Amino acid sequence: MEELKERIRREGRVLSGNIIKVDGFLNHRVDTQLLWRIADEFTRFFDVSKITKVLTAEASGIALATICAHRFGVPMLFAKKAKSDNIESGLYQSEVFSYTYKKKVTLLVSQEWLSSDDHVLIIDDFMANGFAMQGLVDIVNAAGATLEGIGVAVEKGFQGGGDKFRAMEGVHYKALAVIEKADENGIVFRDDV
Amino acid sequence: MEELKERIRREGRVLSGNIIKVDGFLNHRVDTQLLWRIADEFTRFFDVSKITKVLTAEASGIALATICAHRFGVPMLFAKKAKSDNIESGLYQSEVFSYTYKKKVTLLVSQEWLSSDDHVLIIDDFMANGFAMQGLVDIVNAAGATLEGIGVAVEKGFQGGGDKFRAMEGVHYKALAVIEKADENGIVFRDDV
Repeated sequence: MEELKERIRREGRVLSGNIIKVDGFLNHRVDTQLLWRIADEFTRFFDVSKITKVLTAEASGIALATICAHRFGVPMLFAKKAKSDNIESGLYQSEVFSYTYKKKVTLLVSQEWLSSDDHVLIIDDFMANGFAMQGLVDIVNAAGATLEGIGVAVEKGFQGGGDKFRAMEGVHYKALAVIEKADENGIVFRDDV
Repeated sequence: MEELKERIRREGRVLSGNIIKVDGFLNHRVDTQLLWRIADEFTRFFDVSKITKVLTAEASGIALATICAHRFGVPMLFAKKAKSDNIESGLYQSEVFSYTYKKKVTLLVSQEWLSSDDHVLIIDDFMANGFAMQGLVDIVNAAGATLEGIGVAVEKGFQGGGDKFRAMEGVHYKALAVIEKADENGIVFRDDV
């Protein structure tokens, strides 16, 4: 998606440790108009008429997933991290390693809100190694729901998560901007190479 | 807001410890169409033409704040909790006690995305004692920004947070559903008493 790549080129910053900051429009200050156009772009790759639920993980995925769900006319469901008092028993759980927080977190989805009748599109704003994404896929499978696709706005292609899902049989994966290289010389996207 | 109260009456559940679950439409599975109508309702109480930014705290506030920001045509900014590697120095910080997690968390907003030029509407899905909200107000003040208002979808009126903000001079506070009492007999709203 050219507009997204252009925003990343213009406003993204590369920090040490391969961290790419896009917090001016994607995951801290959020440009909801851009998110709407990202949701539009996803309709080119996924048959959204089949989808009954958009699933993401807290926290930064929620903004994009909310706009996508609103655009597609279905509810948004977000996996919570760790255990809070607001969640009782009856949970799908998946333990994942968070690259952002450098520790294990447990993704939780109430069994009440995801069932074998659901057709799920998983949406996330950012993907690196794909551990959190795998946790979401595991939860969809545990519910016996149908995974209709995985849509990611920005993928750090050099960290392998995206390629893992591309290689998965029966999984429909699409990232709108795949960063192949990010260093002091700037950001290079996969199809620019 | 009658529609919101009706959803809470119909779908909300009261757990022990005064916990009110509205996770079927507000903060786990999210009905974005309802959120849009909540955003509409806020336009009756706040002059949204003045607002330059919608501010909330992660995680569950993000969905509503995103829809509000989209409805009002301004960016959404969410305070992050604790410190992640994706945030460098230059932060507004406010330490608050989380009722949900029963521990202190630090709210963080990058100084880059909030300034004295900003006119801020703080939005949250749920408020109990208002500690997190106070943290957001402190951050707006630290930035020298103008607080245009505080909009809350569901307030637990019996926990005092809302009344604290109602009593604050110069603060424009509005909650769309104020729960006065919640026990085994059901949920009573303030203006139903």
